[in-house]
Amino acid sequence: MRTIEWKEGVVVTVDQTKLPNETTILKMTSCNDVAKAIKMMKIRGAPLLGAAAGYGLALTAYHSKAETKDQLMEELVVSARILRNTRPTAINLFWALDRVIEKTRETEGNVATAVKAVIEEAERIATEDVLANKIIGKHGSSLIDDGDTVLTHCNAGSLATVDYGTALGVVRAAWKDGKNIKVIATETRPLLQGSRLTTYELLQDGIPVTLITDNMAGYVLSEGLVDKVVVGADRIVTDAVINKIGTYTIAVLARENDVPFYVAAPESTFDLERSSEDVLIEKRDADEVVKFGGVLVAPAGIEVLNPAFDVTPLKYVSAIIYEKGILYPKDFQRLSTQN
Amino acid sequence: MRTIEWKEGVVVTVDQTKLPNETTILKMTSCNDVAKAIKMMKIRGAPLLGAAAGYGLALTAYHSKAETKDQLMEELVVSARILRNTRPTAINLFWALDRVIEKTRETEGNVATAVKAVIEEAERIATEDVLANKIIGKHGSSLIDDGDTVLTHCNAGSLATVDYGTALGVVRAAWKDGKNIKVIATETRPLLQGSRLTTYELLQDGIPVTLITDNMAGYVLSEGLVDKVVVGADRIVTDAVINKIGTYTIAVLARENDVPFYVAAPESTFDLERSSEDVLIEKRDADEVVKFGGVLVAPAGIEVLNPAFDVTPLKYVSAIIYEKGILYPKDFQRLSTQN
Repeated sequence: MRTIEWKEGVVVTVDQTKLPNETTILKMTSCNDVAKAIKMMKIRGAPLLGAAAGYGLALTAYHSKAETKDQLMEELVVSARILRNTRPTAINLFWALDRVIEKTRETEGNVATAVKAVIEEAERIATEDVLANKIIGKHGSSLIDDGDTVLTHCNAGSLATVDYGTALGVVRAAWKDGKNIKVIATETRPLLQGSRLTTYELLQDGIPVTLITDNMAGYVLSEGLVDKVVVGADRIVTDAVINKIGTYTIAVLARENDVPFYVAAPESTFDLERSSEDVLIEKRDADEVVKFGGVLVAPAGIEVLNPAFDVTPLKYVSAIIYEKGILYPKDFQRLSTQN
Repeated sequence: MRTIEWKEGVVVTVDQTKLPNETTILKMTSCNDVAKAIKMMKIRGAPLLGAAAGYGLALTAYHSKAETKDQLMEELVVSARILRNTRPTAINLFWALDRVIEKTRETEGNVATAVKAVIEEAERIATEDVLANKIIGKHGSSLIDDGDTVLTHCNAGSLATVDYGTALGVVRAAWKDGKNIKVIATETRPLLQGSRLTTYELLQDGIPVTLITDNMAGYVLSEGLVDKVVVGADRIVTDAVINKIGTYTIAVLARENDVPFYVAAPESTFDLERSSEDVLIEKRDADEVVKFGGVLVAPAGIEVLNPAFDVTPLKYVSAIIYEKGILYPKDFQRLSTQN
């Protein structure tokens, strides 16, 4: 089952803030619905944000009363601006918006043709994501050995994508290839995507998983309990991988303990026109850190720093797995020159 | 006010699992009360465990009906065994038990004299701890510059000791010396000693503190937001510092970012007859990781690894601050040979 689906003017997904205790289906009928769900992290994960952004524009197009293509384009530009203002770091969101608008602009014909083009392009983004993940999984499985324990961070699974997952796509492919592997999942504070989502996905697939708190990453790596690290990415720039807060920490610890550190992400995550210093790291609300289920776990009014992402320089990355193959450090220089 | 106090046959402390939301006073009248409080981490922090263990024996002695010194010694040995079986990692607990029993054994006289000796030695351990922390603070302050931001992990404050604290003793002394410093506190999962206790102590003292989740340690260090790291220790052995889970991770990140990593601990934390491979790292219950305020935040039955401590090899340690001065890497070799 796909994490996000288009059903004739309604975009259907699961509210990820409620998992694993509750499976709440979310039905969105406007770009504002989608923007709100993204801001509240009911929808999260870089590739899924791309698909959701595309569908957000599809909702605008589907329900539009525009009488000309120009009017529709104007509405799409307004919707894109709303979606752009949700979360600043994952590039896939911007990429998908640009792609749908570009495609629609290029499509010749009347308003009905344009509406159809928007919806089709949104659908294409979602379908391509599933395909990309399957291929990423296939490439990535070649890096995983029978008997390996794989450490992953946050959730780069089917819930972070349209289906299958990036980092967990690699895990799934290795498992499907008959490799007897185990996963260690970091809980990923503050929002616990690891304990809530990654463990949930792996349990459903019957893949053995052990949960740790984030500060145990050093322990499991130094104790020799991890053979490979595989994580996703929110944006890959010319000098770094930008991903969920804590990724940099794990990358440094992996290198210190001679454990390969792999990043699995579709090409839609690449932003090779920028370096890390050009990327805004989203800072989120203090309540995410100091409250658990609405209950305060720190003194009231305490100052909190809550960056959602961090920057892992490419020197810590052993390989980037994407749908076109595997990039090794010798290939990384091409990232900054291929444009 | 001391964290733990002897009041004629009653040991009084605060239940640290309830802070900062509730200040629940705990009155213990037997060694079993103390053992239970330690196991449940109502009492925690290596130096405080030492003081509590001493007081546990004092309670046995005070309430004893032994008619001979030999009978009392037998009761003390039984009590010591109960206290020894609470938590295996912090050395201070074992050190205090050995010290009180040894002192009592050496004391000549009748049972009343022996009872008095137990109580006096327990009181002496507590008093010496406060003094040691004050001196540690004084030494440590010399390493802190005006304007520094100090990163600390877990709680090595007055709540982890009888009073003043080790790592926070250094912070307090620097602050008292007029240095305009700030603290970044990691929340310290799973039991949140950082967000619940360290922030609480610093707020009370008016020392600026910012809370982060554990996986943000790499972010703040790589962003240049930290000038010094200061942590406590549960046991210092010939080759490593053993401290709250996550310490090793921060030490590696500090070295990677050229930030000094200091350990502040009294000599009662030193165990120079052992190396790290001889020390048992306590594994605690899965519920600490998967439940928040009794509410499950991960799929039911998920496998969890929950080590309470990790091992930081001395190569990552810039200095150890103790009551006799500051040990630098050039002095560390003496740690393994001075016995």
